[in-house]
Amino acid sequence: MSTDSQILDEVVIPEYLKIDTPLKLTSGSVLPSYELIYETYGELNEDKSNAILVCHALSGDHHVAGVDKDGKPGWWNGYIGPGKPVDTNKFFVVCSNNLGGCRGSTGPTTINPETGKVYGPDFPIVTCEDWVQSQNELRKHLGVDKWAALIGGSMGGMQVLQWAIDYPDKLEHALVIAAAPKLSAQNIAFNEVARRAIMSDPDFLEGRFIEAETIPKQGLSLARMLGHLTYLSDDMMGTKFGRELREDKLQYNYEVEFQVESYLRYQGEKFATKMNFDANTYLLMTKALDYFDPAAKYDHNLSEALAKATAKFLVVSFTSDWRFSSQRSHEIVKALLDNDASVSYAEVESQHGHDAFLLPNTHYEGVFKSYMQRVYDDTLQNSKSNQGEQ
Amino acid sequence: MSTDSQILDEVVIPEYLKIDTPLKLTSGSVLPSYELIYETYGELNEDKSNAILVCHALSGDHHVAGVDKDGKPGWWNGYIGPGKPVDTNKFFVVCSNNLGGCRGSTGPTTINPETGKVYGPDFPIVTCEDWVQSQNELRKHLGVDKWAALIGGSMGGMQVLQWAIDYPDKLEHALVIAAAPKLSAQNIAFNEVARRAIMSDPDFLEGRFIEAETIPKQGLSLARMLGHLTYLSDDMMGTKFGRELREDKLQYNYEVEFQVESYLRYQGEKFATKMNFDANTYLLMTKALDYFDPAAKYDHNLSEALAKATAKFLVVSFTSDWRFSSQRSHEIVKALLDNDASVSYAEVESQHGHDAFLLPNTHYEGVFKSYMQRVYDDTLQNSKSNQGEQ
Repeated sequence: MSTDSQILDEVVIPEYLKIDTPLKLTSGSVLPSYELIYETYGELNEDKSNAILVCHALSGDHHVAGVDKDGKPGWWNGYIGPGKPVDTNKFFVVCSNNLGGCRGSTGPTTINPETGKVYGPDFPIVTCEDWVQSQNELRKHLGVDKWAALIGGSMGGMQVLQWAIDYPDKLEHALVIAAAPKLSAQNIAFNEVARRAIMSDPDFLEGRFIEAETIPKQGLSLARMLGHLTYLSDDMMGTKFGRELREDKLQYNYEVEFQVESYLRYQGEKFATKMNFDANTYLLMTKALDYFDPAAKYDHNLSEALAKATAKFLVVSFTSDWRFSSQRSHEIVKALLDNDASVSYAEVESQHGHDAFLLPNTHYEGVFKSYMQRVYDDTLQNSKSNQGEQ
Repeated sequence: MSTDSQILDEVVIPEYLKIDTPLKLTSGSVLPSYELIYETYGELNEDKSNAILVCHALSGDHHVAGVDKDGKPGWWNGYIGPGKPVDTNKFFVVCSNNLGGCRGSTGPTTINPETGKVYGPDFPIVTCEDWVQSQNELRKHLGVDKWAALIGGSMGGMQVLQWAIDYPDKLEHALVIAAAPKLSAQNIAFNEVARRAIMSDPDFLEGRFIEAETIPKQGLSLARMLGHLTYLSDDMMGTKFGRELREDKLQYNYEVEFQVESYLRYQGEKFATKMNFDANTYLLMTKALDYFDPAAKYDHNLSEALAKATAKFLVVSFTSDWRFSSQRSHEIVKALLDNDASVSYAEVESQHGHDAFLLPNTHYEGVFKSYMQRVYDDTLQNSKSNQGEQ
């Protein structure tokens, strides 16, 4: 990636879409209306065939590329922008904050029109299927008949899988990065410990902390520390921190002593305070992850679940990712191959654990870029044939 | 292991040793006097050459074998007892609760003679070296010149390494099981999250919870849940729990839904309440683990650290243990081989993660039993030569 790309990054202003079509959630609850916040990059072409939807991960948001009004770069800015693997000179890229999020889309931190107070814990639990349903409203609003590609990493990759199953004719390509077809018992267990940490914080107040003008800072910090730990590989932590001390000798007390403790504590506190991530959203997102299991409806047969998918797939995993290991991507690839689907797969060598999907990596960039060239070629193809029809 | 061994298990009554020799701790603090609680199994032979010291892990105690007065079997009862791998018909087995523990040895839950109140957070931080020093007093008290073997798993294995370095002429054999020569950054990070969970519990009261007649139950539960998670393998959790639900359908709320959540929550609560483990002890033990790094004094060269060790070693690791992986045992074996030490090594196939060292396993039992036969042969040899001298 170009080191001076920052200078060229466009300032993006988010937009809002108010949706008044009631959303029937998987849980049975109904959201009468809701808003989605989203950003777009690049230009939608005339026949609207170059649109790409990016799905974010647990703590991500709609600000995926460019810089916001405060100059903050998007979370995947290294990979999305002019001349980058997802080239915004060619593609019209869209990213929305998930329903139930805390960055502008309707969620626990927004006002419940029925009560005039913030939803807080009353916001219903949403699932991956609900997210896809709500994003489909955004697709319609943008006038896009079919996404040229859906792209997502981690939780975002799961959404891409769900899209490919639920709306097979609405996407040409599916890029599923550092994901899994469902969480393992260990994954669920880590989520549960994180949720317990939040819910047992006395400032959680059964989720009504916003009304009480407080935040469950300790619990949220703990949840983030634990999450962060599982995003990194043992090797990478060893390389980055080893057993380095903050002071030059052991203190024999419970203050921060090792660099890794300092780093983790900083990450936890930043998440809870500076980033001001909402605790109810954290609970809700981890639950949606736990629930994600598209094969469940198909007698736990992932191949059958993916039988309806017609998209072409790129699946990417990273060697040191122990949260969603390469083995989990193999399950997806195998199920796609069972259906003779078009699937490319790359197992990228990286020391950076689950976080690798967000970080610079020559192999990953090459795979990503060349696959997006293919998407572009397909898009042009469609664009030409559409023009031919006009 | 015999299934009816329970019937034959002897009831063991713990003993106390009061030590009035002041203990200068690694931290610089001095304990003027302290007590160690310990149990013994089998008979010490005439020339006191058949004594074995077992070192316990983080949440372990002195009750390693037999049954206590309440009928509770020892934590390693499957491997220690009459006819078992560590055969108490042949060996005199000793196990003490570590200094700073909460099961009877002097620690945060005992009375500080200087104040007449429980030590609580005023109990000084101890290290592995301090434990070894205190256990050496127990050795002297028992009149044992040289242990036939030191045996320990996990944290206990680290103590065995420390013994071999600090008192090389006081042990014949060293059995280092599921251990590591020092904690990795990831290991330290997990400990730090657990400590934060405890210390941020409002009932922790800066460690003075006993005086306030409360316990930091939520924090301690969280710490245990997290610890427990790292003791199990992903595969084993998958086999044991999968994504099984407690009820037959999803509830879409934050109550316990998956079996693995229920299991972990039970483990956490049991630890904090029924088992009544002391939170200050948990902090102290994890710190001692973090500090353990015998190579640090030797320019971070483990081979040099182990150069003085004259014991014969058995090192055992388990394939699915990701807390202290086989790679960490390889480091120990390699350092011993650099010194041309006598070392046997077994990498045991197991699905049970770090917990495997406590569980039945045919390969492990075979290795353990045959090595202990070797220890016995050595002991007999010594015993005979001693008798010859009389």
